[in-house]
Amino acid sequence: MDNWLCKQARLSPDRIAVTDGKQQLSFQALATDAGHIAGQLTANNIPAQTRVAVLANNTLAGYRIAMALLGSGRTIVWLNKRLTTAELLREFVDCQASTCLVADDLWRTDFPEAFIQFSVLLATAADPESLQSDFDLPQVASIMYTSGTTGAPKGVLQTFGNHYNSALASALNLGLTPNDDWLCAVPIFHISGFSIMMRGLIYGMTVRLTERFDAEAINTILVNEPVTAMSVVPYMLKKLLAFQETNSAPYNAHFRTMLLGGGPIDRTTLKRCEQLHISVVQSYGMTETCSQIVALSNQDAAAKIGSAGQPLFSTQLMISDDNEILLKTPALTPGYLNRPTALFDKTTADGWYKTGDVGQLDDDGFLFVDGRLDDMIISGGENIFPDEIEAVYQNCPGIRDIAVVGEPNDTWGMVPVAFVVADEPLDTLTFKQYGRDHLAHYKVPKRFIAIDALPVNAGGKVQRVVLRKLL
Amino acid sequence: MDNWLCKQARLSPDRIAVTDGKQQLSFQALATDAGHIAGQLTANNIPAQTRVAVLANNTLAGYRIAMALLGSGRTIVWLNKRLTTAELLREFVDCQASTCLVADDLWRTDFPEAFIQFSVLLATAADPESLQSDFDLPQVASIMYTSGTTGAPKGVLQTFGNHYNSALASALNLGLTPNDDWLCAVPIFHISGFSIMMRGLIYGMTVRLTERFDAEAINTILVNEPVTAMSVVPYMLKKLLAFQETNSAPYNAHFRTMLLGGGPIDRTTLKRCEQLHISVVQSYGMTETCSQIVALSNQDAAAKIGSAGQPLFSTQLMISDDNEILLKTPALTPGYLNRPTALFDKTTADGWYKTGDVGQLDDDGFLFVDGRLDDMIISGGENIFPDEIEAVYQNCPGIRDIAVVGEPNDTWGMVPVAFVVADEPLDTLTFKQYGRDHLAHYKVPKRFIAIDALPVNAGGKVQRVVLRKLL
Repeated sequence: MDNWLCKQARLSPDRIAVTDGKQQLSFQALATDAGHIAGQLTANNIPAQTRVAVLANNTLAGYRIAMALLGSGRTIVWLNKRLTTAELLREFVDCQASTCLVADDLWRTDFPEAFIQFSVLLATAADPESLQSDFDLPQVASIMYTSGTTGAPKGVLQTFGNHYNSALASALNLGLTPNDDWLCAVPIFHISGFSIMMRGLIYGMTVRLTERFDAEAINTILVNEPVTAMSVVPYMLKKLLAFQETNSAPYNAHFRTMLLGGGPIDRTTLKRCEQLHISVVQSYGMTETCSQIVALSNQDAAAKIGSAGQPLFSTQLMISDDNEILLKTPALTPGYLNRPTALFDKTTADGWYKTGDVGQLDDDGFLFVDGRLDDMIISGGENIFPDEIEAVYQNCPGIRDIAVVGEPNDTWGMVPVAFVVADEPLDTLTFKQYGRDHLAHYKVPKRFIAIDALPVNAGGKVQRVVLRKLL
Repeated sequence: MDNWLCKQARLSPDRIAVTDGKQQLSFQALATDAGHIAGQLTANNIPAQTRVAVLANNTLAGYRIAMALLGSGRTIVWLNKRLTTAELLREFVDCQASTCLVADDLWRTDFPEAFIQFSVLLATAADPESLQSDFDLPQVASIMYTSGTTGAPKGVLQTFGNHYNSALASALNLGLTPNDDWLCAVPIFHISGFSIMMRGLIYGMTVRLTERFDAEAINTILVNEPVTAMSVVPYMLKKLLAFQETNSAPYNAHFRTMLLGGGPIDRTTLKRCEQLHISVVQSYGMTETCSQIVALSNQDAAAKIGSAGQPLFSTQLMISDDNEILLKTPALTPGYLNRPTALFDKTTADGWYKTGDVGQLDDDGFLFVDGRLDDMIISGGENIFPDEIEAVYQNCPGIRDIAVVGEPNDTWGMVPVAFVVADEPLDTLTFKQYGRDHLAHYKVPKRFIAIDALPVNAGGKVQRVVLRKLL
């Protein structure tokens, strides 16, 4: 295919490609800019056809540099700014990148000499270079390390074909209008954010960047700017609803979708969305599938509370005999960097990708995700998923945060126990009673253990493996 | 991928898949119906995995049978109802189809015993069969014989992947809304019509079938029914405009696009469309590319009169040294049936498909198609295209229809001469003067020859090869 950036510079030259609310670049300007930055990359001894690590916020500079890397045939390795320097360096070494480009405000004094600040790169005197003419679909466009709640992070290879197929499947699901404008408040170094950039490029769509998630500021944007879609996780959605509910003007008339990842929506939140006429599409996906591959439409949401929805048009899904969710999709990674057998180990003999998630399909083909296979607790022959128990306890008075893991038990094999963050001493009896009122008996945690804060990884996910070690 | 029909039966079970204005079928009903017809195919000794020829009008029966053939893993060979029986039989033998299914009102007494009427098939007592679970993208879904203005018709192989890529490229160009409803008045046995069926299946979109092009009836449909798009050729568009201009109510509020194939639009027609607020997307494509691969948006139309537009997102286009239009697109046929080298002969060493059309790209990357390489007249070193001359003479008083071909000439090598259909005896002097007023001197036909009617092929295209033989 033609280089997507050059293509959009021809197809939609004057359309705004990206804006941060202050500055904006058309597709034509972005392509010209990318050629200029490509020259600066070369002048900084960052050769074409190499991997380049990037440590960025959701800023215009990060966006422009990412586009220049893609457009000039370099592979982006997205690093997570929440990692420690030692963790960053481990990934930097693993991916054999020629350098790491770092947003100025993410610079750390202990970074090695090979790292370059954005401002240094963008101040380099250099002639513009031609961009790569073609994008080959099997070519690797980006690499993201899975945050992984267990084991060492692995670099997920994402090809242009993966991104293309993901964007098209999303368009078939959500529709596509000439005025689409997607607000990107999720990190561009995660697939949730980077997939918005790629959709922008493939659809010829405007991306509205925000540097951080500030619910009040974003409410104002959604009211006043022509944004049509936004990607959120449940926490963000609830914060935004709160601002809409306090005398805010409604979102602009073109707004049409909240794309929700990171777990299903509860009935109360759904009701609040309904009352505010905010349409929510729930979804399920992973770094390995270049974002969502299962989605639940707003219309089906009330009838299918707790479901992630149906596999998108180009995705095939089945449940294995041991209840694992298996996938085939053209958006699936071709593998992990430097780990030639890692994908093979996660693939069945029939070529199905094993997600590591456990779930069920109902009679209408809607997926219900129970949780991670690794986190499953088998107690007296029953399968128990921490996610379900934790969700129930979210509304229990006296509990600020909770995580459930399995503990070995002579009678039942395993039993669920809970780590609880609370402001007061734990009232275990009340907690147990609450559990018995809302859960099957065997799912009620046998113990409640106070903890100051739950251990989370750089992606914000609770590390149950750390909690299990505490037992 | 999952069988598209089964997939839409799950994703959009209650959405209307197809309607002829009287009856309608939801995707769920269509899938059930296809299983039933699959059983009837088997009961009529039409094995799975074979090719089945179809001779159909744009009726619900034709649509249902086509869906059943696709859904059950049989390959559709679309035959053109305008062919003589001898021509039909030549294609039937060439494609080695197990049978030919014929719409009752297209039945001819000289059809062989192997042919089956729709009513006979649909009256067969049989148990429903399961549909094929998967559609493999490289699998051939349909075969269409190119009408070809020269040479024997060749069966163009169209894979599921070709149709899928074509539909997605069209969606990226035209957008996609949940209420899309495409009126199909162009024949389903042509790619212009069949591609609407395939888009319906891929988008989960309603297809509104009409059996014939009756401009008044279609104007009424566009006014009163929730149709959002329609495929037309220039003749149809002009007829429809005439009905809109005579006191008609405007089209329904959801109508958004006329997709125009079969040649560019003139300035007068474009103005009429503008005044009626009818958005026209002009396009260029062929049976070998599964419909349009170049398109001109309504916004660009006025600035680019005569252009076919820009190559769609997934299509690459270049002009060869001898001005032939070359293509790369995932919608390109993998080849011709029983002619293993035919596609190779039309492909450059670098893998570009040679369209046989001559054209130019302007500085903004817009394509202007001059005409067929075969029809080009080289006169005194200048390239002359009959299409241009014919277009100019469309507005010349006293000329009803005109076709231009090259005639050998001692001085110039070749010169253009015109065959003219007229009500009065030809006024050659006036015609020549008209030409000199509107064309470069060397393009003015040297002779005007009266003819009762222009010879056309089954696709309605003028057969210039026949005219050349008359000289």
